[in-house]
Amino acid sequence: MIKLALCQNIATGDRWETLDRVERLVKEAAARSADFAVLPEMFICPYSARYFQAEAILGHEEITARLAALARQYSMYVVGGSIPEMEDYCCYNSCFVFDRAGRQIARHRKVHLYDADVLGMHVRESASFRPGNGITVFDTEFGPMGVAICYDLRFPEMFRAMARRGAKLIFVPAQFNLSSGPKHWDLLLRARAVDYQVFVAGAQAARNPEVRYQCWGHSAVYDPAGQCVARGGEEEGPVFAELDLERVTEEQALLPIQKALRRDLYSVSE
Amino acid sequence: MIKLALCQNIATGDRWETLDRVERLVKEAAARSADFAVLPEMFICPYSARYFQAEAILGHEEITARLAALARQYSMYVVGGSIPEMEDYCCYNSCFVFDRAGRQIARHRKVHLYDADVLGMHVRESASFRPGNGITVFDTEFGPMGVAICYDLRFPEMFRAMARRGAKLIFVPAQFNLSSGPKHWDLLLRARAVDYQVFVAGAQAARNPEVRYQCWGHSAVYDPAGQCVARGGEEEGPVFAELDLERVTEEQALLPIQKALRRDLYSVSE
Repeated sequence: MIKLALCQNIATGDRWETLDRVERLVKEAAARSADFAVLPEMFICPYSARYFQAEAILGHEEITARLAALARQYSMYVVGGSIPEMEDYCCYNSCFVFDRAGRQIARHRKVHLYDADVLGMHVRESASFRPGNGITVFDTEFGPMGVAICYDLRFPEMFRAMARRGAKLIFVPAQFNLSSGPKHWDLLLRARAVDYQVFVAGAQAARNPEVRYQCWGHSAVYDPAGQCVARGGEEEGPVFAELDLERVTEEQALLPIQKALRRDLYSVSE
Repeated sequence: MIKLALCQNIATGDRWETLDRVERLVKEAAARSADFAVLPEMFICPYSARYFQAEAILGHEEITARLAALARQYSMYVVGGSIPEMEDYCCYNSCFVFDRAGRQIARHRKVHLYDADVLGMHVRESASFRPGNGITVFDTEFGPMGVAICYDLRFPEMFRAMARRGAKLIFVPAQFNLSSGPKHWDLLLRARAVDYQVFVAGAQAARNPEVRYQCWGHSAVYDPAGQCVARGGEEEGPVFAELDLERVTEEQALLPIQKALRRDLYSVSE
């Protein structure tokens, strides 16, 4: 069994205060013997271009060092949601993953940037970030796992590729908002789980009524049959889930969808 | 606006009696000015190998002639669910589509055959049918439309291909059962609609308590945002839905997912 703690936090606008909040959640996860602490997308600041820029200027190294230290201290994997990452004068929306020894074992840069007009807001991630150029699957003591960030969830082919590369559990740090959240958050997590017969764990930020772009919360985990393993509310706090990855093999044996793919008729991502 | 009538029928085990039932539903659809009458998968007989074989021996020509005549008589498109189709000593699970003049404008042979153990039943479609070798998109006065049969619904890449070939409405004649129905029927229709931003119309058979493999009913139509346009119960009767295909263009403009595909990172079916 694997125990996840989806650390649904609020970002206050102050990096250090926010890191302290995150640390409290990770500590709570450790107290409940979680194997993985999973943070939301942009857990470090309110979701807006102004804050992304301020974070980029401060640099991401202090944050990743803190996450690595927490992983080591509690001997827990930390899937570091996402933060603005600067490299060569470019900023990425990046998820850093650490193992129990605090070693960085993966970095996923959000591939699909969210440009949309929603609830009267003009969201243009492509004005703040450069897109990533890779699909991310990393090894753990439990086997390979994948990670996708928020809008990446809308691209089934990326999940097909992660599943085919062996991922039995895919993490999705996200900030689905008060419009897309109720409409599509659970639907898309469940659909990816059922189509590729894997576990999907979505970590959302908590709802913060004091910011303009409000995350919908409701972090959730679905199993390979699409059943809900755990689902939180909109408030700050960890959402715990216990998974048996054997369920993946069982479900794929019960309904061997993956063996019935017709590469002669359509393209299948590998 | 397009008006659909999903003709959720019961197959009694007698071809002619069943055709009369179907005719009554199509007549009801015509009386309500439907543009399309959509039948379920294997609308002609109870869902079992024994009946499939009996139908194959009788031949499909009488059924297709009857559907063509209904289409012409009521000046309505008929999406003929599916029936066993014999060709060169092979049997296919095939959907024939007729235009308002009664001309056959498409034939989709189920591509993915359902082999699974479910509710104590040993279902082996591959023992009765040969799989189809094509993806089906056909032209209508409203633009191109697609068709997939039941288990085909579990293969997202096939829907991507239909959407990319211009289909704004995809028909799914099906027989999701009392296990897969409540678990996955609405989820998968909605997911295909939301991912590819198209309308998806799923036509199920009515529930028949007198047969072993019972269809779950609940024929339903979802719009490109995943909202339910119409949804039936499990009893026999047409389910009506009115659609505005302009919603496809609107939804794709609102959230331009299709433009953000990353062909450099994964394979996209065309």
